[in-house]
Amino acid sequence: MDTENIKHPIIQGLLRLIRAEDRSGAYDSEPDEELLAPFVVTKAQKRELPMFDDPDPDILMRVSQFYAAVAWEVERQTGKPVAPMMDIHHEGWGRVLLISGRLVAVNAHVRELHRFGFETLAALIERAEKLAAEGIAAIAKFPEVVEG
Amino acid sequence: MDTENIKHPIIQGLLRLIRAEDRSGAYDSEPDEELLAPFVVTKAQKRELPMFDDPDPDILMRVSQFYAAVAWEVERQTGKPVAPMMDIHHEGWGRVLLISGRLVAVNAHVRELHRFGFETLAALIERAEKLAAEGIAAIAKFPEVVEG
Repeated sequence: MDTENIKHPIIQGLLRLIRAEDRSGAYDSEPDEELLAPFVVTKAQKRELPMFDDPDPDILMRVSQFYAAVAWEVERQTGKPVAPMMDIHHEGWGRVLLISGRLVAVNAHVRELHRFGFETLAALIERAEKLAAEGIAAIAKFPEVVEG
Repeated sequence: MDTENIKHPIIQGLLRLIRAEDRSGAYDSEPDEELLAPFVVTKAQKRELPMFDDPDPDILMRVSQFYAAVAWEVERQTGKPVAPMMDIHHEGWGRVLLISGRLVAVNAHVRELHRFGFETLAALIERAEKLAAEGIAAIAKFPEVVEG
């Protein structure tokens, strides 16, 4: 895994979120690469993943961590509080919002969460930056709604 | 149950939602009163309801129908599309938003959903009208965010 990408603020935020949820301390000795590995799922691996049954709770936790990391990045760049909100149907599709005050800063539709993951860490960062940019632009456009 | 209250637009909306989800046709011959009865839970009944285990799926469905009825009422009065979004922890607490465009028209925190229900139909209407009024006021205040 690319060391440069691990230094990226979004990946550092993601790692903090993952380690924060490790109540047993089991991750303390795990290198960053190990903790990030489940987020990287290649196209070939995705084809192997079944689409029946509900998505694994671990996958939904990673979806939640990914959007929380995007929320942190928007907070870091705007100084405004941003909270993720997930409305996910148990079959693995739904909607994720990042909310700041009364503003929907980011509106993302998700589906096929059984296969949630990114081809590479760089692809994860690219997607997160695109979502963060949407949030930052919306907050800049409607500051009074963020405060409202 | 009070017939006047059943004529209220919010209750009529709620009934349409309940009947729409009845795929088997089992409710066709049920009177409105029967379909609304599970929404009315007195304080004494609430005390009898256990707070352990996850809330019943039927309760979560009623929570969803209640907020969808509020969303419809806001749509009816503003002419703007409004969508409910529920982020409920499996232990029975969470947040419900009514979204219109990029605006959080209504922001409701919910808890103790094991005991979801209203003392009377009039109390249900009162709560729904209060939430709808919040949404209508927000949409009037930030029309450009609804369009954005």
